[in-house]
Amino acid sequence: MTTATQPLDSEQLRKLDAWWRAANYLSVGQIYLYDNPLLKEPLSLAHIKPRLLGHWGTTPGLSFIYVHLNRVIKDQDLSMIYVAGPGHGGPAMVANAYLEGTYSEVYPNIAQDEDGMRRLFKQFSFPGGIPSHVAPETPGSINEGGELGYALSHAFGAAFDNPELIVACVVGDGEAETGPMATSWHSNKFLNPIHDGAVLPILHLNGYKIAGPTVLARIPRDELEALFKGYGYAPYFVEGDDPMTMHQLMAATLDTVVAEIQRIQNDARAFGFDTRPRWPMIILRSPKGWTGPESVDGKATEGTFRSHQVPMADMTRPGHLKILEDWLRSYRPEELFDATGKLNAEIAALAPHGERRMSASPHANGGLLLRDLRMPDFRDHAVAVPSPGGVDAEATRVQGRFIRDLVRLNPDNFRVFSPDETASNRWDAVFEVTDRCSVAQILTGDEHVGPDGRVMEMLSEHQCEGWLEGYLLTGRHGFFSCYEAFIHIIDSMFNQHAKWLKVCNHIPWRRPIASLNYLLSSHVWRQDHNGFSHQDPGFIDHVINKKAAVIRVYLPPDANTLLSVTDHCLRSRNYINVIVAGKQSAPQWLDMDAAIKHCTAGIGIWPWASNDQGSEPEVVMACAGDVPTLETLAAVTLLHEHFPELKLRVINVVDLMKLQPPSEHPHGLSDREFDLLFTTDKPIIFAYHGYPWLIHRLTYRRTNHHNLHVRGYKEEGTTSTPFDTVVKNDLDRFDLVADVIDRVPRLGPQAAYAKQAIRDKLIEHQQYIAEHGEDLPEVRDWKWV
Amino acid sequence: MTTATQPLDSEQLRKLDAWWRAANYLSVGQIYLYDNPLLKEPLSLAHIKPRLLGHWGTTPGLSFIYVHLNRVIKDQDLSMIYVAGPGHGGPAMVANAYLEGTYSEVYPNIAQDEDGMRRLFKQFSFPGGIPSHVAPETPGSINEGGELGYALSHAFGAAFDNPELIVACVVGDGEAETGPMATSWHSNKFLNPIHDGAVLPILHLNGYKIAGPTVLARIPRDELEALFKGYGYAPYFVEGDDPMTMHQLMAATLDTVVAEIQRIQNDARAFGFDTRPRWPMIILRSPKGWTGPESVDGKATEGTFRSHQVPMADMTRPGHLKILEDWLRSYRPEELFDATGKLNAEIAALAPHGERRMSASPHANGGLLLRDLRMPDFRDHAVAVPSPGGVDAEATRVQGRFIRDLVRLNPDNFRVFSPDETASNRWDAVFEVTDRCSVAQILTGDEHVGPDGRVMEMLSEHQCEGWLEGYLLTGRHGFFSCYEAFIHIIDSMFNQHAKWLKVCNHIPWRRPIASLNYLLSSHVWRQDHNGFSHQDPGFIDHVINKKAAVIRVYLPPDANTLLSVTDHCLRSRNYINVIVAGKQSAPQWLDMDAAIKHCTAGIGIWPWASNDQGSEPEVVMACAGDVPTLETLAAVTLLHEHFPELKLRVINVVDLMKLQPPSEHPHGLSDREFDLLFTTDKPIIFAYHGYPWLIHRLTYRRTNHHNLHVRGYKEEGTTSTPFDTVVKNDLDRFDLVADVIDRVPRLGPQAAYAKQAIRDKLIEHQQYIAEHGEDLPEVRDWKWV
Repeated sequence: MTTATQPLDSEQLRKLDAWWRAANYLSVGQIYLYDNPLLKEPLSLAHIKPRLLGHWGTTPGLSFIYVHLNRVIKDQDLSMIYVAGPGHGGPAMVANAYLEGTYSEVYPNIAQDEDGMRRLFKQFSFPGGIPSHVAPETPGSINEGGELGYALSHAFGAAFDNPELIVACVVGDGEAETGPMATSWHSNKFLNPIHDGAVLPILHLNGYKIAGPTVLARIPRDELEALFKGYGYAPYFVEGDDPMTMHQLMAATLDTVVAEIQRIQNDARAFGFDTRPRWPMIILRSPKGWTGPESVDGKATEGTFRSHQVPMADMTRPGHLKILEDWLRSYRPEELFDATGKLNAEIAALAPHGERRMSASPHANGGLLLRDLRMPDFRDHAVAVPSPGGVDAEATRVQGRFIRDLVRLNPDNFRVFSPDETASNRWDAVFEVTDRCSVAQILTGDEHVGPDGRVMEMLSEHQCEGWLEGYLLTGRHGFFSCYEAFIHIIDSMFNQHAKWLKVCNHIPWRRPIASLNYLLSSHVWRQDHNGFSHQDPGFIDHVINKKAAVIRVYLPPDANTLLSVTDHCLRSRNYINVIVAGKQSAPQWLDMDAAIKHCTAGIGIWPWASNDQGSEPEVVMACAGDVPTLETLAAVTLLHEHFPELKLRVINVVDLMKLQPPSEHPHGLSDREFDLLFTTDKPIIFAYHGYPWLIHRLTYRRTNHHNLHVRGYKEEGTTSTPFDTVVKNDLDRFDLVADVIDRVPRLGPQAAYAKQAIRDKLIEHQQYIAEHGEDLPEVRDWKWV
Repeated sequence: MTTATQPLDSEQLRKLDAWWRAANYLSVGQIYLYDNPLLKEPLSLAHIKPRLLGHWGTTPGLSFIYVHLNRVIKDQDLSMIYVAGPGHGGPAMVANAYLEGTYSEVYPNIAQDEDGMRRLFKQFSFPGGIPSHVAPETPGSINEGGELGYALSHAFGAAFDNPELIVACVVGDGEAETGPMATSWHSNKFLNPIHDGAVLPILHLNGYKIAGPTVLARIPRDELEALFKGYGYAPYFVEGDDPMTMHQLMAATLDTVVAEIQRIQNDARAFGFDTRPRWPMIILRSPKGWTGPESVDGKATEGTFRSHQVPMADMTRPGHLKILEDWLRSYRPEELFDATGKLNAEIAALAPHGERRMSASPHANGGLLLRDLRMPDFRDHAVAVPSPGGVDAEATRVQGRFIRDLVRLNPDNFRVFSPDETASNRWDAVFEVTDRCSVAQILTGDEHVGPDGRVMEMLSEHQCEGWLEGYLLTGRHGFFSCYEAFIHIIDSMFNQHAKWLKVCNHIPWRRPIASLNYLLSSHVWRQDHNGFSHQDPGFIDHVINKKAAVIRVYLPPDANTLLSVTDHCLRSRNYINVIVAGKQSAPQWLDMDAAIKHCTAGIGIWPWASNDQGSEPEVVMACAGDVPTLETLAAVTLLHEHFPELKLRVINVVDLMKLQPPSEHPHGLSDREFDLLFTTDKPIIFAYHGYPWLIHRLTYRRTNHHNLHVRGYKEEGTTSTPFDTVVKNDLDRFDLVADVIDRVPRLGPQAAYAKQAIRDKLIEHQQYIAEHGEDLPEVRDWKWV
């Protein structure tokens, strides 16, 4: 008979433990065995892999949790996924997916028979095989192991707007030391029990990292409990090392916490949201390398850091083979698998059915669930532009209205993420239809804060990125708006997501997901409020180091182009789209039709600013980014004034990848197209938003590269006026004009005069700024051809 | 009379409050006033700055804390510094430094008179002036405001090995949401009360970020208390809004916590270290924009997010001028400053003396305290290299012995920082002389863990970087060792530190500090244990976007060059040195004399591998990085075998910056030197450690750039053998040979035969790997000339 504290009868206990033993057996097999998967022969060195790689330490704990989650899934027909934070728990997750049958379904070569098991073992950490950590190749995973810190953010992102889903999230005590993880516990202030699902965090304390002890395993129990109560959870402890005792304890605890989750949800869903619930979490303390060799070469191994990777790495040492064979046989494989390698039916029956298997949940292959966004017509928000430069607008404010309509039309699968910068980046319109999300205390006087808000703001770029990734990976859509300089905070998270997408492109069963879209605003050129520390346009450089197939970079020069680009990005799949755009009032260049045409091409001549029609220009003025475009067109106005005969061509670049050869990026212009635009021998003055050498990097193979002169940000400036900032970096109109004069020798003596006049003008500007602290009022008598 | 809860008599209270009013007056003045600093005339629009920038919200709280810290400093002759986390609290820190006299000492133009005050006000957030946040220009600061999250890590870094120092660290509730801050509270597990100083964290809850409420201000008091008890602190609450009540409460609390700090230190110093102390911290809850306008335009302002920046931004609106004048006059400036602008002597007397002033502490201008390291002779660790390639060694293991000697010789001003990778990166030797630092629980069986350890390991790259920065900025030395891929986690922190150093180079009173040194190991080419997620050599790309004056990148190809580079970096000042080196056993090329010569040059021909002596080569084989060097020399061996007549030159690059023109980096080779090395017209096959386009970026202005062909990492690979990884990225010896053959047409028909032979060899290798899971045993019959 069973009780609340002993919920498993002896049969259940035996079967659960058998599954766990099977998972552990398969894990050790993956780490060690090259052959002899069922141990039909006595183990010999020939059966051992030549390179022993992998991480045993965290693995048995992950499998222990897995089988217990399966019990409650099956008992209560729950929809769950499993986020495995501990980076190198690959063997466990693969083993359980194999036991559930999913692995063989998606990889028919790895069948549930002896040969399949041999392949399963061999492929692990083997050239041409699978990595040692949880990866896109692992069915059921939405979280790359390896770099640590994002498991819980991913889990909450998965739970948002998934009311029926429970996301079990295992957090290792190594990972728990990272900054992103330490703040991600606060995600519970943003989870709504009515329309979101639940996250069940399981902090897995096994005491050691690679070599040293972990912080959370070495603080007193009362501190540990206080910490998680302080984070707003109700912690439940499961501690010990005796498997049978631990099974009962874990089963009882899971019954309690699942009931508690359901009680919270039922209450909120029946009576409405009232106050932030105190969600349960589990603290599981179990030995590192649990059930592994107690000692190796006379040194304690189970329960110590020596279990972190491969407990016996050198199998030629005396006794090691015996230890391994005893270890493997301790799981009694003959009770688990029949002679053909098939899992004992009684054990196999523990797996949930079909999509209830965590390894087969469509939520962990979000493309399966992805619905297209209902798209408002971005043309409805067009800024009327009677003539180029004839009207001013704030580009991101206009974009914000489009985003508002998206929020309204897609109330359950589109969210906006930002570190408290939604309003600052001028997406205020969004607050006409929704709030900032918070299920914490709300005070009279708060504006646009509510428990149903679809704007996810926490002052943690990590948290925003992690939530959004989790949301996208489970089949939804979103947008991340951020100050340009501080998006570097998530450089490494970007890397992991880009690598995830790259790998997914080669996995047929992984279905495409919505692209990850960034708006980077409050950019390097407009830090009126801030200073040098807020100036860094290098995220673009970082992004284009990743595979061309997954990254896109857009620099729309005004509001209408920004609208067109935004629409395009939101319809795309499996990309990371970086959009850089200013929020300040600035001249508008293209009406909507021209903007669409320009964005579709990605790059083009602006004929109204050029006067080279019907002939080769003497100089090409290229620009990418809103401020460089403004300065270029102001320079063009000056040039038309001073040198009306000078034939110049203005090229604007929206899609940066157009500059690369097509061999490097699918968007790249052919050499012929590039030469037609940029000529093969005329000087090119290129005003670029970011670090100037990036343009060289993109174009160094082009015919006319040796005539290319790039201006961009060169780490000069601090809190100052917009114009002073471009001057400090030589990107201003006057410097651009001087660049042209220097490169068109035929201008002759007239040039020296013009250069002096322009220099005087610049000095006048600078003096005005030094005295008044603001720029001279913008001159708006554009001179086009 | 005074009591423990009312420690201030009325005189003290009056004076403290007067200082606070003075600081607030000066802060509002900085944000708003262009002229009329003493309000001698009625305020008019002419006195207001044209661009109103700055952040009022956090400012009064920062000054409140400042004056109270001054009281205890003075009462007890304490040595303290003040780390101001809230990014935009610039006005407060500048105001207090000005009141203390320090500001006028370092900036004599900003004197303590009316004209000085006018300049003080005007310069703030004004072109040519100072930024709105705490910055290198701010005396007393070691923490750039702006990007948030690092204040507490910096504070602990400052306290390590500074037993007499108390670091007061104010953490804003916005900043408290960041990941790095959330984990940095755990720094208390690494602070030794005997030989380290104390950190007094002051969590400043003022409730709002830019626009939304903060997480920690909206959780119940019991949760907040539990959280910080869980973090291991004893929290003391100071809450309210009535200034006089708050003064008594803050004073009483500071008396208590300073006494508690002293009790902890005295106990430990008298009786030895026993258990981790529960250090006190303060939770200060005060209104945002405290003492500012209660409401503006009918909307509540004090105590709300509307105080975050400039409460009245548009001063032409009716009534705003009046609100500002009333606000300024509410501080009763006539009581604070005399008609000449001099601070009332009674108030001025509140400042501590000389270096006890937090704005004048030498700890906050660490270069003043910097002592050279006692340097062991790196030559003592030289690997004997009888012939190039004739012996193998693990480069970082050899380096680790040098680091061990440094630790031993510099027991109080050198530490090693790493996210649990010291042993993994093979600096094991360090543990012969010291431990991993931990003042938390230590268990039997732990290895090399102790409360006096000088190896700072927490699984948070943010924490390691922040600690190290704090340690360096207060005048000490250190080294950060990290897996190459995951150093991107601190990209943005690197940015901030590089910008800090760049600005300091222009501030005469800021004295040079020790360089920040990175060892990046477990690099992209040797991820035998790990996979695709651990492969990213792009930190170099990120680094070289920053000012050439502060960054250096080294790629030593073997152990002896690594030793030489390490020695050089440890002696340097005000740089960020990035060293990339492998930890695996690999062939050694240079004996110590040759290594020193090679590293001193930074780049050079390896004559023993070249056969172009006395003539122009037909091809240049260049390499940078250990694995590319190995593959290049293996290719050279093959080429010498197949084409003994082929004249080739091998160039190895240690100092990457040598490739840039001298106009771009001070290390850059002149064009003439570059041409002499790389020829002006011969093909160059360049095998590079990182993303190949970086070499193009560095060399695009060089004469022979159009003949440059670069191989490097192109985002291919996963867990596999070292050789398979280079093959996947076309950096292997066979591909390099093929590159040469393709570019030297005169090789004729012999070439086709050789190419086939080489291709066969490659296929043989790949088949071996696929079957055995490891590389063919390395062939070591190098063929030199």
